[in-house]
Amino acid sequence: MDFKSKLKQYQDLINGELSKYIETKKCPEEMLNHSMEYSLMAGGKRLRPILVIATYQIFKEDVQECMPFAVAIEMVHNFSLIHDDLPGIDNDDFRHGKPTNHKKFNEATAILAGDGLLNNAYRVISKYLENSSKEDLPKKIKIFQEFSDAVDKMIKGEFVDTEVEGKQISEETLEYIHKHKTGALLTLCVRMGAILAEVSQEDLNRLTSYAEKIGLAFQIKDDILSEEGDEKILGKPVGNDKILEKCTYVSKYGLSGAKEKLEKITKEAIEELKIYNEKAEFLIELAKYIKERNK
Amino acid sequence: MDFKSKLKQYQDLINGELSKYIETKKCPEEMLNHSMEYSLMAGGKRLRPILVIATYQIFKEDVQECMPFAVAIEMVHNFSLIHDDLPGIDNDDFRHGKPTNHKKFNEATAILAGDGLLNNAYRVISKYLENSSKEDLPKKIKIFQEFSDAVDKMIKGEFVDTEVEGKQISEETLEYIHKHKTGALLTLCVRMGAILAEVSQEDLNRLTSYAEKIGLAFQIKDDILSEEGDEKILGKPVGNDKILEKCTYVSKYGLSGAKEKLEKITKEAIEELKIYNEKAEFLIELAKYIKERNK
Repeated sequence: MDFKSKLKQYQDLINGELSKYIETKKCPEEMLNHSMEYSLMAGGKRLRPILVIATYQIFKEDVQECMPFAVAIEMVHNFSLIHDDLPGIDNDDFRHGKPTNHKKFNEATAILAGDGLLNNAYRVISKYLENSSKEDLPKKIKIFQEFSDAVDKMIKGEFVDTEVEGKQISEETLEYIHKHKTGALLTLCVRMGAILAEVSQEDLNRLTSYAEKIGLAFQIKDDILSEEGDEKILGKPVGNDKILEKCTYVSKYGLSGAKEKLEKITKEAIEELKIYNEKAEFLIELAKYIKERNK
Repeated sequence: MDFKSKLKQYQDLINGELSKYIETKKCPEEMLNHSMEYSLMAGGKRLRPILVIATYQIFKEDVQECMPFAVAIEMVHNFSLIHDDLPGIDNDDFRHGKPTNHKKFNEATAILAGDGLLNNAYRVISKYLENSSKEDLPKKIKIFQEFSDAVDKMIKGEFVDTEVEGKQISEETLEYIHKHKTGALLTLCVRMGAILAEVSQEDLNRLTSYAEKIGLAFQIKDDILSEEGDEKILGKPVGNDKILEKCTYVSKYGLSGAKEKLEKITKEAIEELKIYNEKAEFLIELAKYIKERNK
């Protein structure tokens, strides 16, 4: 399998789908729509929706079935980026090599664009439920419930992350932040794909474990890139974590300790999927990509 | 009917219900929970959940059936107040006679508390759907859908309101802002009660018209109070709209013009409910209360 071209194919599919949800008509709130579009289409990796779809495709083919949840989770992800970047929180000026939302527009617009994207995620879900067959409703409502719980965790994780800035924290707190701030949403993505595909409890557990492991790997890699990545490729400044005395997997275990941990956890994640053979090839390659990416 | 004691009874019922959703356990995000509780229990009038319940009670008795939507809408209302008060938007220091959320806590906490309340509203709805009978799902999903659309309108209305600050705007734009920023949510409340009670399309139209009219009356009265209310009773400064050159129903029609409009629209709202006789007595008294309130 050519992983890179499959990845690109997924990204194009998702970008095409997301663009259907962008309101372009002339209206009093036009700039708010532009601002939501600006962040949503700023060139993210689309990792979250890809996880939903690729997990579903281990078991089933009709990819359109996943699309509303894939779109909704990408909206939530972008809401969280816009709000995290705000002057009142991380005060970041650049993201994906472009000015952050409040820099490009203004603070009021960025706050409301974030609110709008979070709420739009639920609009997408509500319309999906309204158009569902009776038989499909229970699993979709279960997903809606897990979705809202994961977003709750993400917000709590972001809060604690903000709270501990410049403080020495325990390994327990570092783990708490990661599991809530990034882990919950990544795990949710895999679980959404699996629940939609109506997998067994055993499969669900296995896939959840894979998701938790690549989520941790993703965070460790993020911390490594923040320390020694290439600013031009990353599209954001490097070394800020150190300046802000942020507690990360790098500040906790050192660069080489973090890299060892990343290696080990990636191997374990891949192990979980071996049972699915070539059906899980993309997700296995994705775990390697998370470890090896340079942005 | 003793309107004031019935109102108090409703408020107590809602406050009791809301308090069930407040997390009090020791946890890393404890302060975030305190911050959400601070705003949620700051002594609002509970107008929105009351509209849900009182509308439902024209037709049916089992008030518990309304509670999740009543709680969810009050969460959304408080999310919008917290974000509107932020330095990046209205920069208000007081609300209900107390420091605003970001003044009491800090900006990061206030942003995330608002996010958390918006998301919690959907958590409440998702759990309600999960525990519903199959037969009740279609009407509740319809409500979920209208709910998310109304919140979308509210966010757009807030955006346009922010945009036009200090500008001369047309009657059309003033109406657009009101209908989106406050009208949509108030109308939603009445419609939620009505749809839950499974009323006819004719009743739904009639109640929607009542809701639109009291929504407009509420906004006009708000503008009047902002101009000539008692700061001590209101719990916030008076005259700010003029200083900020905000376009309001008072700046547009003058104080006496706004009062005339308020009188007329309240009468029309009450007219819509006459058909329900004493069953609608509370909602009729509520329309009068909205017109006559001093805070």
